Amino acid sequence: MPNPSVAMLVIGDEILSGRTRDANLHYLAKELTRAGLDLREARVIGDDGAAIVAAVRALSAAHDAVFTSGGIGPTHDDITAENVARAFGRPISVREDARAILAAHYAARGQELNEARLRMARIPEGATLIENPISAAPGFTIENVHVLAGVPSIFQAMLASVLPGITGGAPLLSQSYEIRRGEGDIAAPLGDLASRYPDLSIGSYPFIRDGCYGSNIVIRGHDGARVDAAMAELSGMFPA
Amino acid sequence: MPNPSVAMLVIGDEILSGRTRDANLHYLAKELTRAGLDLREARVIGDDGAAIVAAVRALSAAHDAVFTSGGIGPTHDDITAENVARAFGRPISVREDARAILAAHYAARGQELNEARLRMARIPEGATLIENPISAAPGFTIENVHVLAGVPSIFQAMLASVLPGITGGAPLLSQSYEIRRGEGDIAAPLGDLASRYPDLSIGSYPFIRDGCYGSNIVIRGHDGARVDAAMAELSGMFPA
Repeated sequence: MPNPSVAMLVIGDEILSGRTRDANLHYLAKELTRAGLDLREARVIGDDGAAIVAAVRALSAAHDAVFTSGGIGPTHDDITAENVARAFGRPISVREDARAILAAHYAARGQELNEARLRMARIPEGATLIENPISAAPGFTIENVHVLAGVPSIFQAMLASVLPGITGGAPLLSQSYEIRRGEGDIAAPLGDLASRYPDLSIGSYPFIRDGCYGSNIVIRGHDGARVDAAMAELSGMFPA
Repeated sequence: MPNPSVAMLVIGDEILSGRTRDANLHYLAKELTRAGLDLREARVIGDDGAAIVAAVRALSAAHDAVFTSGGIGPTHDDITAENVARAFGRPISVREDARAILAAHYAARGQELNEARLRMARIPEGATLIENPISAAPGFTIENVHVLAGVPSIFQAMLASVLPGITGGAPLLSQSYEIRRGEGDIAAPLGDLASRYPDLSIGSYPFIRDGCYGSNIVIRGHDGARVDAAMAELSGMFPA
């Protein structure tokens, strides 16, 4: 049996105008190769509804799996979700489980779940959510299309959630923990933790917020008790 | 009248496998934006004849201009030229002017124009050559499709040759000069030269050959006498 064939659809005016250099195609290509999957083609299109519908239909029909990146944020030009829904003739609306994820995320940070942010809880009917351990707003899978964020750290974290389901591996459990310290300060204890839990995948996704460095640490593994144990150690090392 | 619409086709297994990160899409996007042209979509495909034919036909029909990158080198897996010819139903064979360019280039370097290198002189019937000031082997334009090399420095130099014809600007004259010194040694005098010829575009395309640093300096401008004058100064500063 040949390897499953995969396509990527990069969505965003900023890529085509040259303002942003896409990083997700190269990352996906490497990850798929490592997983024994074939990336057969990629397309880059703008934030254009008709173009999204046409490309999603063409790639979904021609390949076993499709990954999209970009266009699922809170602003008016983020139109990927509704057009992926359109491509499959599905309605889209705010879904309660997605809304609850966002509500908890913003409540914990004292931020408002306003109408713009609520856009990110709109999920096509029948889709499965993809966890976003970085900034909460979920991606989703509908038919054979996986709709991921465009921000590289979030794209990478979402890909780690969804890839085992495609390769046939057991799904990975994940937990995340936000540390308000620069990566340079946490690298050594984090490396030590990783060496004591070789069965887990421990990723650091740095950010700058309000002028301060921080990082979301995502711990993944097949054994929930091990993930819990590592997470308890981590939060003990860096109390909130 | 809307801006001319442009598409890009990136060709190469190494991009889809993740071995190489494409740099040409981002470069083209920036250059087109600066020139007032709209990059509307891009596709990335492998070294696969049927995929090249299908993508060239689709993009050529949907857009005013198409740029391809990759697959025009000397090895067996460089199959872009013959499949672009196929897409337009044109025969392809070694063309005398292209062969003469390669013969002169390799003769000057004491290298053999062997059968592999001669592949790079195969040009579809009716195509126009695109100058390659870096490594001689030409690209070509057929219908509205511009077939460029994948190596970024050569892609960029070929794009500079062909872009004025699309924007409607006067064609640029160009001359190139090879300097067997590292860029660090030539940067200061080159910057000085550029400041005295603000009407010219002076580009440096570095290489490493036989373990030694060097750079091809390409001088472009609308006024041939000015290009000649700058080139005379340059060769005076760095005698061969």
